Amino acid sequence: MKRDGFDAWVLDAQAAVEAALEAWVPADTPAGLGQAMRYGVLDGGKRLRPLLVLAACEAVHGERAAALRAGVAVELIHAYSLVHDDMPCMDNDVLRRGKPTVHVQFGEAQAMLAGDAMQALAFEVLTPDPGPDGVAPALQARLCALLARSAGHAGMAGGQAIDLASIGVALDETALRDMHRRKTGALLQASVLMGAACGPTDARAWDALARYGAAIGLAFQVVDDILDVTQASETLGKTAGKDAHHDKPTYVSLMGLDAARRHALELRDEARAALDRSGLPDTSRLALLADRVVERES
Amino acid sequence: MKRDGFDAWVLDAQAAVEAALEAWVPADTPAGLGQAMRYGVLDGGKRLRPLLVLAACEAVHGERAAALRAGVAVELIHAYSLVHDDMPCMDNDVLRRGKPTVHVQFGEAQAMLAGDAMQALAFEVLTPDPGPDGVAPALQARLCALLARSAGHAGMAGGQAIDLASIGVALDETALRDMHRRKTGALLQASVLMGAACGPTDARAWDALARYGAAIGLAFQVVDDILDVTQASETLGKTAGKDAHHDKPTYVSLMGLDAARRHALELRDEARAALDRSGLPDTSRLALLADRVVERES
Repeated sequence: MKRDGFDAWVLDAQAAVEAALEAWVPADTPAGLGQAMRYGVLDGGKRLRPLLVLAACEAVHGERAAALRAGVAVELIHAYSLVHDDMPCMDNDVLRRGKPTVHVQFGEAQAMLAGDAMQALAFEVLTPDPGPDGVAPALQARLCALLARSAGHAGMAGGQAIDLASIGVALDETALRDMHRRKTGALLQASVLMGAACGPTDARAWDALARYGAAIGLAFQVVDDILDVTQASETLGKTAGKDAHHDKPTYVSLMGLDAARRHALELRDEARAALDRSGLPDTSRLALLADRVVERES
Repeated sequence: MKRDGFDAWVLDAQAAVEAALEAWVPADTPAGLGQAMRYGVLDGGKRLRPLLVLAACEAVHGERAAALRAGVAVELIHAYSLVHDDMPCMDNDVLRRGKPTVHVQFGEAQAMLAGDAMQALAFEVLTPDPGPDGVAPALQARLCALLARSAGHAGMAGGQAIDLASIGVALDETALRDMHRRKTGALLQASVLMGAACGPTDARAWDALARYGAAIGLAFQVVDDILDVTQASETLGKTAGKDAHHDKPTYVSLMGLDAARRHALELRDEARAALDRSGLPDTSRLALLADRVVERES
């Protein structure tokens, strides 16, 4: 696939995700909860996770309507985790996607509730009533299972707990990798697998996509660590340099900048090799998304 | 049904729920997250919501294994909401079920993560892999749908947002009822409906159980408001008198103690009348649970 066609596909997919978020995240809840939820998830972000869902769905010729719901659900989980992570009792950050964070804008209590409600909404979006754009109940259940496992104690929340406990602690590469596999990797991998669940797959394709998802999940974090030291806050849209400031272990502090850059490229190659082993005829969008993960500048 | 038989049923059901929570809430997560989750949900509480799930399931001759999962899931949602609600940015409470609250014991960041992970775990429990105690995928999806809607912006989280916005505000009975219908009522009603979803129901039975659930949901809150002013903290296992202290509107502040007591009994009668209209042959346990809701002393 040409890069031009891919860029157009990305823009189109991002627009579809944005429209779905706009439609499904409520504006009209009492007491401003909906406003805080919308502030936390609309009009920002590169929507990498939904792009992975949609690209994986296309690779298996799956149901687009189901994948769009899965993409929105996974983005809601990602966005809620940022809202909670930015709060004073966690990272205490005031800037996100170039705007004041949700708790700065709406207060801590509303930010906590908005995050809680965004997690519930993710599962609501995955379980629509029967209707014209209905998702088969068995697929609804499968998507809920994949999302819940990646978001919870064995995945994202567990990784955040390790992260909390690691401030000022010297982790070796194995421990750092385990933390990131959960904290960031689990949800990125689940994005790929939720997309794959929207169509038929054999064990070979499923395993290959799981490997691809694991590799780009780690690559994403390695690049995050690199950007944290090489980019300005204005470029990132969030506070730069905060890992070092908080004395958190990173790939850069562990292996140095050059080795971290090489490692990101190795992981990208690992992801692409997994796609080649999948037996799926067209994984070019997933391959280009892997490139985008390691080449991003914010 | 005799009260003796009912008491034995309650003890048996509570033991089953406790054993399931013990088995399904993980102890072995890294960085102590599982310990905080277990502290927040194990060994405390009357398990009213799981009892409602199990009694409703029995009324429709539903699948017990599915109802047990639903009961654990709804209790996890309830427990996570208490963990977050007790935090300094919300109610700032230090005592719950007679013990220090989760954030007092484990710190605010771990309490927030534990609550987040408990919500994810609820949906994980509802979507087990296929196996001997497997729940049919369509039922898994239905239970996730009911739980997500009752926990989110239109239900519990939305009610909490109204509650936050109501401190020091004079609500009339309609507004107070709307807040509690969401904040407490939605999850209690969902408990009944999740139990009912575990077996066959016609529209008449479903509607009657929905009415029953709505009535006991409100009754529960009216009694909560009464106990908040009539009981000591030692009896409640949580800080008494805090609604008045926080200048929150309550049924007692709105209608006075005697009228609030009469209102609780009316709602109990409304719940029982709904059961009589359900066409279901044996709703005696649900009827006795309605009694228990209004007669409880803590």
